[in-house]
Amino acid sequence: MKQLRSSAFAPASIGNVGVGFDILGLAIDGVGDTVELIANTESRAMTISFSDPAVGFSNDAIPVDAKGNTAGAALLTLQDDLKLPIGFDVRIRKGIPLGSGMGGSAASAVAAVVAAAKILQILPKRLRPAKVAKLSLEQLFGYALEGERLGAGAAHPDNVAPCLYGGLTLSSPLFTEPVKTLPLPKGLCCTLVHPDVRVDTKTARQILRPNVTLQTYVHQSALVAGFVLGCSTRDFELIGESLRDLVIEPQRQHLIPAFENTKRAAYSVHGCLGFSISGSGPSVFALSRSFTAAKGVAKEIQAQFKLAGLDSQAYISRLPAKGAM
Amino acid sequence: MKQLRSSAFAPASIGNVGVGFDILGLAIDGVGDTVELIANTESRAMTISFSDPAVGFSNDAIPVDAKGNTAGAALLTLQDDLKLPIGFDVRIRKGIPLGSGMGGSAASAVAAVVAAAKILQILPKRLRPAKVAKLSLEQLFGYALEGERLGAGAAHPDNVAPCLYGGLTLSSPLFTEPVKTLPLPKGLCCTLVHPDVRVDTKTARQILRPNVTLQTYVHQSALVAGFVLGCSTRDFELIGESLRDLVIEPQRQHLIPAFENTKRAAYSVHGCLGFSISGSGPSVFALSRSFTAAKGVAKEIQAQFKLAGLDSQAYISRLPAKGAM
Repeated sequence: MKQLRSSAFAPASIGNVGVGFDILGLAIDGVGDTVELIANTESRAMTISFSDPAVGFSNDAIPVDAKGNTAGAALLTLQDDLKLPIGFDVRIRKGIPLGSGMGGSAASAVAAVVAAAKILQILPKRLRPAKVAKLSLEQLFGYALEGERLGAGAAHPDNVAPCLYGGLTLSSPLFTEPVKTLPLPKGLCCTLVHPDVRVDTKTARQILRPNVTLQTYVHQSALVAGFVLGCSTRDFELIGESLRDLVIEPQRQHLIPAFENTKRAAYSVHGCLGFSISGSGPSVFALSRSFTAAKGVAKEIQAQFKLAGLDSQAYISRLPAKGAM
Repeated sequence: MKQLRSSAFAPASIGNVGVGFDILGLAIDGVGDTVELIANTESRAMTISFSDPAVGFSNDAIPVDAKGNTAGAALLTLQDDLKLPIGFDVRIRKGIPLGSGMGGSAASAVAAVVAAAKILQILPKRLRPAKVAKLSLEQLFGYALEGERLGAGAAHPDNVAPCLYGGLTLSSPLFTEPVKTLPLPKGLCCTLVHPDVRVDTKTARQILRPNVTLQTYVHQSALVAGFVLGCSTRDFELIGESLRDLVIEPQRQHLIPAFENTKRAAYSVHGCLGFSISGSGPSVFALSRSFTAAKGVAKEIQAQFKLAGLDSQAYISRLPAKGAM
């Protein structure tokens, strides 16, 4: 029988987007993880391997047993839920550095389930699960999120959602539809800069205070409301005034070398609307009015990291960026 | 010289709108305060009096010295800022009961400054302040807010903003423009029911815990973001799922007799989207898909208050409702 295979690419993403801790996420262009699947029609076993590790970082820290890996765990969840009679050889090509705050664990999980959805379309009838004609994005979201939970220790939708759906997403377990995609004004561009240091996501979460003062809560609510309104009404001024993080950034910024300098440098660029930490860092991001401004912001931020002795990679995206495919 | 007079009406409003403590506000129809001004061209003195007290409540508790009254304090602020050479005889007709959670103190302040803006238009040139051709809404907002601060002890924009601007407002000192008016979907209607009990605003604020847990903060951020998105994209489902208060309502609901029953009764009506406390209570409000549903909700809520031995007044508004005029 002919080998059944598929592959999918899932983009990096910015969790929190500064203003919406654990609820907002933004897909970006130009960097992501690719997962290739080869169907194992004889057994339900999963094997994980890595191909072509990207330059500049190692995959050593990523577990290769299926349960401990977000891609593998997501596929096990899908396999279990659909009572799939087959297994997969999973080949992961990481484009997103570990511990970069760019949603790498989410991207592997999302690429894996999107690749699986593709393979299901070409499975011979006798192997295809009866209950599923075509998997919905919502189903895939559930599998990938569970993959993140099992493989990375916590299920935070703020990377899985934009990575799968693309664009700017709002996600919360409180809504029936777990992911909403927000409108974005034409011209809005994103700069993401990843300095070559690693921040451990768990540490970055553990340092957070368990409470927010009522006053800060009120202010940050206004900011998230203003940000959503600004995006919906295509109001650059309001987006700029709203893109501020009074809750998390002050607690995490010390984890990022030269943070204050990169922030100041970003804002110095005409057309820069706002700047904050991407996910739990160390990557930082900015939104700008134009591609030119976004490029200028990248240059300024990289110069500051350089002064601090750090190499960095910059990614510039016209928004909205596409989700996994 | 002919007597210079003007009058303005300012509507009641719903502070917080359940989902956005201290930042969202909603103007309603059919009830409000009216302020009549007679210019005193000989002196800068302010005198305050009440006319036609509405049935069912007394004005005894409202101070009649200008500084201690929100209308008087707002006018003093305006007079001072514009270096106005005149004073006013201020006649307030309260339509909004004291301590009702319907934004009565804001309405008096707003009606006063709107009436003052009208009188400035007809002042003889020698009395008209040089610096002002026509007062902006933003200026009036500042005066009315200061009136609330001086007269009511705290400047919370969530009633002043909708009362002056109309509709659903987002306000925060963090934004350059202090008030944003949100789009509202066609058909959306509001029910406000005021039971005949009084809740002291200061008490209702003092009982609030000074902190919010990080988890509750995340959830409530998602709700306020969802509410703004739902309003902006005219998505009734999302408005309904988002109109929930996890922070303040649980702490204040015991101040309102039969709260749980009124809430359950409101949600039992087909077309009811959400229900919560208006401002600091005891008034409660609901948003519904249609005028018919909003009327049904009013009936159900009033029946529950009646069972608890309370008379109540109900107000139904097609949204957006107009601001002061």
